[in-house]
Amino acid sequence: MGFDEEKGYFKVRDMSQAEFGRKELDIAEVEMPGLMSCRDEFGPSKLFKGVRISGSLHMTIQTAVLIETLEHLGASVRWCSCNIFSTQDHAAAAIVKARTSAVFAWKGESLEEYWWCTNQMLTWEGQPGPHMLVDDGGDATLLIHEGVKAEKQFAIDQSKPNPDSTSNAEMKCVFTIIRDGLAKDPTRWTKMAEACVGVSEETTTGVHRLYQMAKAGELLFPAINVNDSVTKSKFDNIYGCRHSLPDGIMRATDVMIAGKVVIICGFGDVGKGCAAAMKAAGARVLVTEIDPICALQACMDGYQVVRLKEVLPELDIIVTTTGNKDIVMVADMAKLKNNAIVCNIGHFDNEIDMLGVQTYPGIKHSQIKPQVDRWTFPEDGHGVIILAEGRLVNLGCATGHPSFVMSNSFTNQVLAQIELWTKKDSDTYKNEVYVLPKILDEKVAALHLGKLNAKLTKLTKEQAAYIDVPLEGPYKPAHYRY
Amino acid sequence: MGFDEEKGYFKVRDMSQAEFGRKELDIAEVEMPGLMSCRDEFGPSKLFKGVRISGSLHMTIQTAVLIETLEHLGASVRWCSCNIFSTQDHAAAAIVKARTSAVFAWKGESLEEYWWCTNQMLTWEGQPGPHMLVDDGGDATLLIHEGVKAEKQFAIDQSKPNPDSTSNAEMKCVFTIIRDGLAKDPTRWTKMAEACVGVSEETTTGVHRLYQMAKAGELLFPAINVNDSVTKSKFDNIYGCRHSLPDGIMRATDVMIAGKVVIICGFGDVGKGCAAAMKAAGARVLVTEIDPICALQACMDGYQVVRLKEVLPELDIIVTTTGNKDIVMVADMAKLKNNAIVCNIGHFDNEIDMLGVQTYPGIKHSQIKPQVDRWTFPEDGHGVIILAEGRLVNLGCATGHPSFVMSNSFTNQVLAQIELWTKKDSDTYKNEVYVLPKILDEKVAALHLGKLNAKLTKLTKEQAAYIDVPLEGPYKPAHYRY
Amino acid sequence: MGFDEEKGYFKVRDMSQAEFGRKELDIAEVEMPGLMSCRDEFGPSKLFKGVRISGSLHMTIQTAVLIETLEHLGASVRWCSCNIFSTQDHAAAAIVKARTSAVFAWKGESLEEYWWCTNQMLTWEGQPGPHMLVDDGGDATLLIHEGVKAEKQFAIDQSKPNPDSTSNAEMKCVFTIIRDGLAKDPTRWTKMAEACVGVSEETTTGVHRLYQMAKAGELLFPAINVNDSVTKSKFDNIYGCRHSLPDGIMRATDVMIAGKVVIICGFGDVGKGCAAAMKAAGARVLVTEIDPICALQACMDGYQVVRLKEVLPELDIIVTTTGNKDIVMVADMAKLKNNAIVCNIGHFDNEIDMLGVQTYPGIKHSQIKPQVDRWTFPEDGHGVIILAEGRLVNLGCATGHPSFVMSNSFTNQVLAQIELWTKKDSDTYKNEVYVLPKILDEKVAALHLGKLNAKLTKLTKEQAAYIDVPLEGPYKPAHYRY
Amino acid sequence: MGFDEEKGYFKVRDMSQAEFGRKELDIAEVEMPGLMSCRDEFGPSKLFKGVRISGSLHMTIQTAVLIETLEHLGASVRWCSCNIFSTQDHAAAAIVKARTSAVFAWKGESLEEYWWCTNQMLTWEGQPGPHMLVDDGGDATLLIHEGVKAEKQFAIDQSKPNPDSTSNAEMKCVFTIIRDGLAKDPTRWTKMAEACVGVSEETTTGVHRLYQMAKAGELLFPAINVNDSVTKSKFDNIYGCRHSLPDGIMRATDVMIAGKVVIICGFGDVGKGCAAAMKAAGARVLVTEIDPICALQACMDGYQVVRLKEVLPELDIIVTTTGNKDIVMVADMAKLKNNAIVCNIGHFDNEIDMLGVQTYPGIKHSQIKPQVDRWTFPEDGHGVIILAEGRLVNLGCATGHPSFVMSNSFTNQVLAQIELWTKKDSDTYKNEVYVLPKILDEKVAALHLGKLNAKLTKLTKEQAAYIDVPLEGPYKPAHYRY
Repeated sequence: MGFDEEKGYFKVRDMSQAEFGRKELDIAEVEMPGLMSCRDEFGPSKLFKGVRISGSLHMTIQTAVLIETLEHLGASVRWCSCNIFSTQDHAAAAIVKARTSAVFAWKGESLEEYWWCTNQMLTWEGQPGPHMLVDDGGDATLLIHEGVKAEKQFAIDQSKPNPDSTSNAEMKCVFTIIRDGLAKDPTRWTKMAEACVGVSEETTTGVHRLYQMAKAGELLFPAINVNDSVTKSKFDNIYGCRHSLPDGIMRATDVMIAGKVVIICGFGDVGKGCAAAMKAAGARVLVTEIDPICALQACMDGYQVVRLKEVLPELDIIVTTTGNKDIVMVADMAKLKNNAIVCNIGHFDNEIDMLGVQTYPGIKHSQIKPQVDRWTFPEDGHGVIILAEGRLVNLGCATGHPSFVMSNSFTNQVLAQIELWTKKDSDTYKNEVYVLPKILDEKVAALHLGKLNAKLTKLTKEQAAYIDVPLEGPYKPAHYRY
Repeated sequence: MGFDEEKGYFKVRDMSQAEFGRKELDIAEVEMPGLMSCRDEFGPSKLFKGVRISGSLHMTIQTAVLIETLEHLGASVRWCSCNIFSTQDHAAAAIVKARTSAVFAWKGESLEEYWWCTNQMLTWEGQPGPHMLVDDGGDATLLIHEGVKAEKQFAIDQSKPNPDSTSNAEMKCVFTIIRDGLAKDPTRWTKMAEACVGVSEETTTGVHRLYQMAKAGELLFPAINVNDSVTKSKFDNIYGCRHSLPDGIMRATDVMIAGKVVIICGFGDVGKGCAAAMKAAGARVLVTEIDPICALQACMDGYQVVRLKEVLPELDIIVTTTGNKDIVMVADMAKLKNNAIVCNIGHFDNEIDMLGVQTYPGIKHSQIKPQVDRWTFPEDGHGVIILAEGRLVNLGCATGHPSFVMSNSFTNQVLAQIELWTKKDSDTYKNEVYVLPKILDEKVAALHLGKLNAKLTKLTKEQAAYIDVPLEGPYKPAHYRY
Repeated sequence: MGFDEEKGYFKVRDMSQAEFGRKELDIAEVEMPGLMSCRDEFGPSKLFKGVRISGSLHMTIQTAVLIETLEHLGASVRWCSCNIFSTQDHAAAAIVKARTSAVFAWKGESLEEYWWCTNQMLTWEGQPGPHMLVDDGGDATLLIHEGVKAEKQFAIDQSKPNPDSTSNAEMKCVFTIIRDGLAKDPTRWTKMAEACVGVSEETTTGVHRLYQMAKAGELLFPAINVNDSVTKSKFDNIYGCRHSLPDGIMRATDVMIAGKVVIICGFGDVGKGCAAAMKAAGARVLVTEIDPICALQACMDGYQVVRLKEVLPELDIIVTTTGNKDIVMVADMAKLKNNAIVCNIGHFDNEIDMLGVQTYPGIKHSQIKPQVDRWTFPEDGHGVIILAEGRLVNLGCATGHPSFVMSNSFTNQVLAQIELWTKKDSDTYKNEVYVLPKILDEKVAALHLGKLNAKLTKLTKEQAAYIDVPLEGPYKPAHYRY
Repeated sequence: MGFDEEKGYFKVRDMSQAEFGRKELDIAEVEMPGLMSCRDEFGPSKLFKGVRISGSLHMTIQTAVLIETLEHLGASVRWCSCNIFSTQDHAAAAIVKARTSAVFAWKGESLEEYWWCTNQMLTWEGQPGPHMLVDDGGDATLLIHEGVKAEKQFAIDQSKPNPDSTSNAEMKCVFTIIRDGLAKDPTRWTKMAEACVGVSEETTTGVHRLYQMAKAGELLFPAINVNDSVTKSKFDNIYGCRHSLPDGIMRATDVMIAGKVVIICGFGDVGKGCAAAMKAAGARVLVTEIDPICALQACMDGYQVVRLKEVLPELDIIVTTTGNKDIVMVADMAKLKNNAIVCNIGHFDNEIDMLGVQTYPGIKHSQIKPQVDRWTFPEDGHGVIILAEGRLVNLGCATGHPSFVMSNSFTNQVLAQIELWTKKDSDTYKNEVYVLPKILDEKVAALHLGKLNAKLTKLTKEQAAYIDVPLEGPYKPAHYRY
């Protein structure tokens, strides 16, 4: 397959950034020992020779190292971003320049463009589709499943999905694409789903969708839940956000965090990392929680557990980490201090009531700089500063998680793809959702210790027998919480 | 049942300490809101009226509040400690003085005395035994199971267990008790096991034994694994040890922790709490691990992950937290700095090679004060200071976990006992090991939030639907790691 | 001079504790490298041969190492404690047993006994008094100055100080001793002051008195302000209290600190150490301050700066560190939660309104254990737990600062005594207050680095010239704040 | 005076950035309460009406708020940056657009341009020069003093400074400017110095130069040492760097800091802030020191104190904070890990051996992006990544200290300028170096508490008398270290 923008083989913002991207890629490789070890272990045998992999995952420098790892193992790869703001244009360009993968991604896509890219990423000329999916948030999986659903209906009654039937702006795009494709090929998505060996998914949200589909018996191919590997969930969520939340806030606003009152909405893994970062920076940290266990954990770490609505006038910075919706409403923001900062590092932008803000009567909008907007309330002239338009602040305002964290997550992705591929002809994986075997989780961790000069102690045979674990692991029962 | 020491109804060190114990008990109640809530909720109905409960669990002030809670719910209670050093004599006296429970426990029992106490605690005059067991470490459960095993053998061939057949000092005691009892009643333990509705067990070690017995089909009654409730495992292990490790070291040695090099062997929950405490006190903390995931977590928190044998001469303080054996050997101690401190907060004293120390040729022993011993090596005259004779330093040298932590653990125990009792006639619990339902785990946490003025946020119906959880919980999937 | 209690040569509680004290002393020596280095450097020449040193300083194990250091340098030493509760009886006994010093000190002296001890400590048979004073809080210095004042008045009009003229309980004792002595020797204190080469004083309070006396022209001999050496003020106040505040609270109450709301009154060096310790233990920490600079520092470290009276019902633990009076009044305590803990680590017990508590109408007192008292308010039955009767909680409820910290403070004392003695015949020190030369302060620090394996970097000549400091120090200007 | 670039009235990069700069300026004002309070207090009286102020200080957004404050008080202002990389072009443009001040500054000046800008900033058409200087690093002061020196010599023997007489690239520029000016006006600098009421200087380096000049009797006008106000030195150095060091490293490299080994060279205030930030981010932190007191402080906070040369192969990140030269030499860098990061947050770029790097035989240079350069060693192909070409990493790679910190520093500057101006006709300030009175230092802090909702406690009269301080402050003796 060629890489020719004219022919629609890729679409990125600016190929002149490729050289800069390559330099950063080279540096990132040193920080991603897990992926480099995969290249060493599985590269020589070209395990993925002839395998088509489609990925929908923030098109960043770190993802570029993942893509090049998959390609190094022999795969053909097509890629798009899973967020309209998260593409690093120089990373996309570097990948295209190196002919490693087709890429359809740029920073600041419109929703229409976003779903066009997703569709392109799934389109393999002369093939039904990819052998495997790498997914983040589940949009690629969603498009296929919606396509299949529509094709079934179309086969029955020739009806097509109607974009006007939904108020959800994203689903309008999805329906449009599927509707328009039905004419050309009324079984395109069905064939694609059949050809698909499986998907590995890495977000809480995406995994939740998968479990719901599996429960409903609607999942069309096996799925590996990479999100719940310890080396993904704890590392990406806790350590990744601990790094990238302050990074995002500082790049966006340059605000002094020390001395400020910061509220972290949600004290799950993401919230734990965020709260730790803000406390470490000298802020006074408040926490909101619905779960009494997480709330008590917050207490034990010295955070004050409050209800958002009862502390609004005290707050300097609000961070949502819940994975739920309607956390900060425009009525809440109307009660904040002047120039209070509001941002989201959970998942979707509906944690913050963006629609409410945009339609608040008399509100004035001023873009300070890209991804940093000040909204001025008409009543008293106080403004709130919303980062990344309510989307993920670490991706929108900084560069996402650092390479070392992503190396953990992505090594899980690679091992999951290897699991799916090497066991595709066995009965191991049905159309269900699976977590990676713990021994692979431990392997991911082990591959990252050398870079940090950490030295593992080895169990003696007697000790292994005493605590009743295999000498080489896994060392913990499935329910162990770390 | 009377409470008359002459008649063997209790045995404690000194009843004159009862008043002091009562004062501390009154104060502890305020710090144990979970237990007090259980009294409020289940006390009026006398849920445990007529129920015999036998407990083997460190006889401390906090345990006294547990015992009085069980008694408040209507139970008859007999108690012993599960560790020869862990009894607080004033707590034991206060319980006996109040006639709340029979108690057989004092600080500094010999092994023979320890097992005598355990036997007394299981002995209910005119009854086959307790209805339920509260266990910590599994010694009560062990004694019953060994008894039943011996009685089966005795029924076959009249053979009796032979204390000389084992080099394990504890098993010698166990065999002696069982052997001596066979003459009096050759089916005592069998009847006791049959009468037993179940056991709730709260340690990793005890739970491990239970799972092994269940796996082998040898478990004689249902068991609830209280240890793996989040509000037990995380709170007791992390937050409890974070408090009580420095407490134990400071009371025992008065040593400045800041500036010292401390190694934490094992970075599980206990190790995490210990490492946090030592870092917080200004120490430089090294960590050893066998599990690459835990090792990588240690790295992410800034700890240096090393092998013990490679850093011995640098160390000021060694803390074992592994739950495994043979962690610090006498040959290791021979290479330490003068007056390096060695202590264990894992489980058994075999984490430290106490036998090796005691039998090292030419070594000299000097007791600085109770639970603080200096052993001088003959080669160069350097000494090591071993705390609590290698047993749990927080119990031996301080007063164990603080009341608030134990309130979490013990509220789990009470809810487990209630589960076992109220469902004893249903099929819910077989002779297997169960964890408490998550909704009860969340309840334990919720009962402790008020004391800390923490205010939970309530989900809206829409939000609960959005993330697909019941409005009132449980809020997390079973595999959630907190 | 003999050591015979009958003859009044010493008075301690229990000589049978001497052996235990000696063991602890041997261990403390290893933690006090500064003092041991002084022995190595100045011991062989017996620099203090024939020198009489009187000390008024908490008679603890660490002080015992100081005393033995002074004696090792050749001095004759007499000692008393500077606080009625702070003596460690086994330390006092060990010193007497070894005939290192005469000692007049025991835990729990009455005020009359306290001042009797102070008087004994200053009494050198056949001599006018000590050559030098080691003072802590300034009581020894006060007694001499009051004595001289009274003798002057007596010489004029034969009037004697009248204990009934003051409501201050301590001054009553001082006046009584002086009054009673005038008959025996009407110039005793005058001769003593004349014979005194100088005093080294180590507390903020004592130093403040000295500066006032010097300013008023009333100081009778040179004084070295050891308190303001960096290696005293920062180490003793910050690092010492960071260690010993949680130690005191835990030993006294066993209360869980994590999750609690702790207010630190005062954010000077002591407050900074205390706040850090409480935060590290998982508490939520509030701070009160009068000084805007210190208040802003508290903000920068994430503490909420509040006024005590506005947050009383939220508080679990109150710690006073101000060095001022009337910080927590009984009316404040009447508004606290049940079993809130109140303690002082500042200086005098007047930081807490003990008189107000003791005389509150209808209040009930219950001693939980020594140094832990619960006072129950009649209105609603809530109690507050006051530690160490309002005196220093780290000394009253634990063992004070750890040896390593005291080694810093006491090495300053030794170097100050050496300064005073070796320069007594020069004009260097007049009847003023002096701080130690910075090069000696740096020396104290340097003597403590080896124990911690810290390795200093050496300046090159070019670097020293570039920043314009001597190659061997001092490295900082006088006003440097560290 | 007009603002016409053609006429040389200002020179900035791009006036189109003015609007963006204004928006950031508006936001910064909210974070700079000290400066805004100065406007409220001194603005109405136009205290600086007719006063000419020349400033040489990083031309950032925060400085823009300072400039507008001076102008708000009535002053005419001319400005340049004190570092070739530190100008924020949008800040410069906003100031020019608003006609607040003439500005000569852009990011990435050459040395020749830098000194041209400095000269322009000092040039007041039709006037001998500024009434007062605001200086940072002392370059403006240096130029005037060198000018006067040259004019004196020129008056004697008509000799001119010779740029070829020095190998120092900066002094070449200084000499050239002075030489070229002598023809036009041989007493320009002499008249300027005479007209100058004083300078306020805010860096350690600049202050050091001033003290040297004062000591040598060469200082030509009074100087206020703003650097040693507590609200400057502690806040700017500790809290500022704690914020901006990780900000700079993350923006430049996106590297995961957690798990890495970071060495902080120097543990003064800057080093303390940097070490705290790196530790808080999860790094393992090593420290180097020459001063034993600072080294012992590092130990007490749990840092390992080492010598740089003994740990090179372990290091991931090196940060120099010493204010000295020759800290990291090229021979050291040759021994580092691949992609180790080297940066400086001390003062000059000579902390890192940039010349040695640039001239290392066979070394290869690759610019990753502006201010991020990789230097590859020929022996083994490992590279080091040097940030900001060895200059201040927080200014070169991020945006310097946050507004709130700079508000403290700059409020000191404003109060210093007010001191100089209002007392210019009194004898208060001679040609010496002065620190601000402590009461003003406390005032600066007080002006910043409201923004953080901190509430000061007020002393009662009795309490003030008890500790012998004025009711309204200052509250501490001059030598207090905070």
